[in-house]
Amino acid sequence: MNYAEESLRLHGEWQGKIEVVSRVPVKTKDDLSLAYTPGVAQPCLEIQKDYDKSFTLTRRHNLVAVITDGTAVLGLGDIGPEAGMPVMEGKCALFKAFGDVDAFPICIRSKDVDEIVRTIYLISGSFGGINLEDIAAPRCFEIERRLKELCDIPVFHDDQHGTAVVVGAALINALKVVKKDIGEAKVVINGAGSAGIAIGKHLLNLGVKHMKMVDRFGILCEGEQMNPAQEAMAKITNPEKFSGKLADAMKGADVFIGVSAPHIVSQDMVRSMAEGPIIFPMANPTPEIEPDEALAAGAAVVGTGRSDHPNQINNVMCFPGLFRGALDVRATDINEEMKMAASLALAGLVSDEELKSDYILPLAFDKRIGPAVAAAVAKAARNSGVARI
Amino acid sequence: MNYAEESLRLHGEWQGKIEVVSRVPVKTKDDLSLAYTPGVAQPCLEIQKDYDKSFTLTRRHNLVAVITDGTAVLGLGDIGPEAGMPVMEGKCALFKAFGDVDAFPICIRSKDVDEIVRTIYLISGSFGGINLEDIAAPRCFEIERRLKELCDIPVFHDDQHGTAVVVGAALINALKVVKKDIGEAKVVINGAGSAGIAIGKHLLNLGVKHMKMVDRFGILCEGEQMNPAQEAMAKITNPEKFSGKLADAMKGADVFIGVSAPHIVSQDMVRSMAEGPIIFPMANPTPEIEPDEALAAGAAVVGTGRSDHPNQINNVMCFPGLFRGALDVRATDINEEMKMAASLALAGLVSDEELKSDYILPLAFDKRIGPAVAAAVAKAARNSGVARI
Repeated sequence: MNYAEESLRLHGEWQGKIEVVSRVPVKTKDDLSLAYTPGVAQPCLEIQKDYDKSFTLTRRHNLVAVITDGTAVLGLGDIGPEAGMPVMEGKCALFKAFGDVDAFPICIRSKDVDEIVRTIYLISGSFGGINLEDIAAPRCFEIERRLKELCDIPVFHDDQHGTAVVVGAALINALKVVKKDIGEAKVVINGAGSAGIAIGKHLLNLGVKHMKMVDRFGILCEGEQMNPAQEAMAKITNPEKFSGKLADAMKGADVFIGVSAPHIVSQDMVRSMAEGPIIFPMANPTPEIEPDEALAAGAAVVGTGRSDHPNQINNVMCFPGLFRGALDVRATDINEEMKMAASLALAGLVSDEELKSDYILPLAFDKRIGPAVAAAVAKAARNSGVARI
Repeated sequence: MNYAEESLRLHGEWQGKIEVVSRVPVKTKDDLSLAYTPGVAQPCLEIQKDYDKSFTLTRRHNLVAVITDGTAVLGLGDIGPEAGMPVMEGKCALFKAFGDVDAFPICIRSKDVDEIVRTIYLISGSFGGINLEDIAAPRCFEIERRLKELCDIPVFHDDQHGTAVVVGAALINALKVVKKDIGEAKVVINGAGSAGIAIGKHLLNLGVKHMKMVDRFGILCEGEQMNPAQEAMAKITNPEKFSGKLADAMKGADVFIGVSAPHIVSQDMVRSMAEGPIIFPMANPTPEIEPDEALAAGAAVVGTGRSDHPNQINNVMCFPGLFRGALDVRATDINEEMKMAASLALAGLVSDEELKSDYILPLAFDKRIGPAVAAAVAKAARNSGVARI
């Protein structure tokens, strides 16, 4: 199938991938008096008295805003706010299908950090959570950081943390396949943008101790020209100030994770790695190395972002369940504990008996994923003190 | 029924009066590849090339934002943004039921005009229309005026213009009952807030030539302390600079329209009017004069905002059909021509045979209203040059 052509045709036919429906009857005078005036005054007054009731007396408790500025849409780059909306609507459809979360797409006509932060904060009382999406780095870091401080609801940049959660789960299980310990494994992450940095941080939380991050200029190393997020990662991951290119970083490594560019990993580079290498070339739509080539060069486990290869690493396995869990306990934040719990829950859905080199993650459509991730995330929210109920 | 108590109970049970659902299947790999990545890139690129396609390739064409700052909610006043949301959700449910419009409720945590305008403008690319709601006067005038200039989609403050459209329809038919000409009738509007001013302007457009507007300080008259909207109306309606109180204004008048305060019209004031007076005491929930008292004092036609009296003047008869019509032709504005067409279409739904003193408007639930108003509004949009399709 030509996905591009068929998708365009279908989008014209669908006339939107989401819809807002009424949950209440408005057929009689009494219906109107209860759902609207005069009866509606009473729930309004209750919320005025007790702000928390905005979660029980309106839809807020189940509503997530999916918000973009249209500056980093898929691999297409800065295509503008309105042009990003088909992706946001798609995300909202997935939120509903896999997490029973009501998600609503919003695009913001600004590239100014202050303005984006202020706009989202000002409308945040309408929602139970904020999912940021397809916002360019490094701006996305500051937007997320400031919103997390300002808002009393969870704020989550999916391109960073959703990807990190699923890569974490994939890595946990891939390491089991090759019988290596996460604390011993040498991990290379290529692409120190928003997703790469978030993956790096998350893997450190999950127990990785040996990590090199690489960007276009080479291994992240203090003294190089970097943005603040990269500098912070350089300090943590490269105290010995090792400098070099991607090929240097990969020599002897156990794991390659790519969120970078098509076909920049050669078979020789794979051959230079330690025995039983794990390769996650996730550049979209063309991976850093084709899976067949990686396997031919000796890769033990290969996972990509694509649905036409085994071991698809897709953040649809994370965000619906993660927000479901956060909303269920009315979490004020999505913190590291909750993301780690999500990775472990997702990894745990593949039993030791099922686990093999081409089956390290459940399939994206596995109906168990949403509830399993939600339950683990809700528990972690409670244990880490961010649950309100 | 105790509406307050029962409404509160039901709001707890409903857990929100609106819901966001998916319009597309996401059950298989192919589904995902078409509604989401990689296929979704194509509609994104099409919108990037041609902004107008944001209306055909996403839900935007059918989406209206219902936006408040929570400062003038029902008759409750400034109860805060989140506390206004039960009203906004109710409105959204009515939009869907009577206009098949997808409406989404948003509250803004600010009372600053600049900030409210900027916030709404920045998110306006997500919607096909903006319905402002329960924003205090005089701020609401400037917010609406500036947004109408900035946005390429219709912006409509329902508390002003929705009420005006339905009052216009009610007056057209009430004048038929008492066999008076709209150009001859002397009309008094009490309450020169946002609704009163909008009603005044709209009735002038519909052909009223003799109007007095009254507020707490008396008849609107140049020289009094007034806001700019009131000053403008004083100039238009009171060139002879007649000053006085409500009782003075009502002497010899044919029509009283109240959007003011409970029980401030006496039976003597009704008796002082011209023969066959029309009385629309619409203060909510307690009218300016009880309908029974008005009738006993000689009123020929009485209409209120309440559903437990005949002749309910309720803006649910306007906004769903009005926006339906505007969205259907992708209007860039909701202008005077469209509002006038809505009043005439609504009035036209009561035939000369049906028309009587206690039946001047169709019932709020009459399923003909939405389509009739929509068709008239769409036609007026085309004729006045604001339709894009």
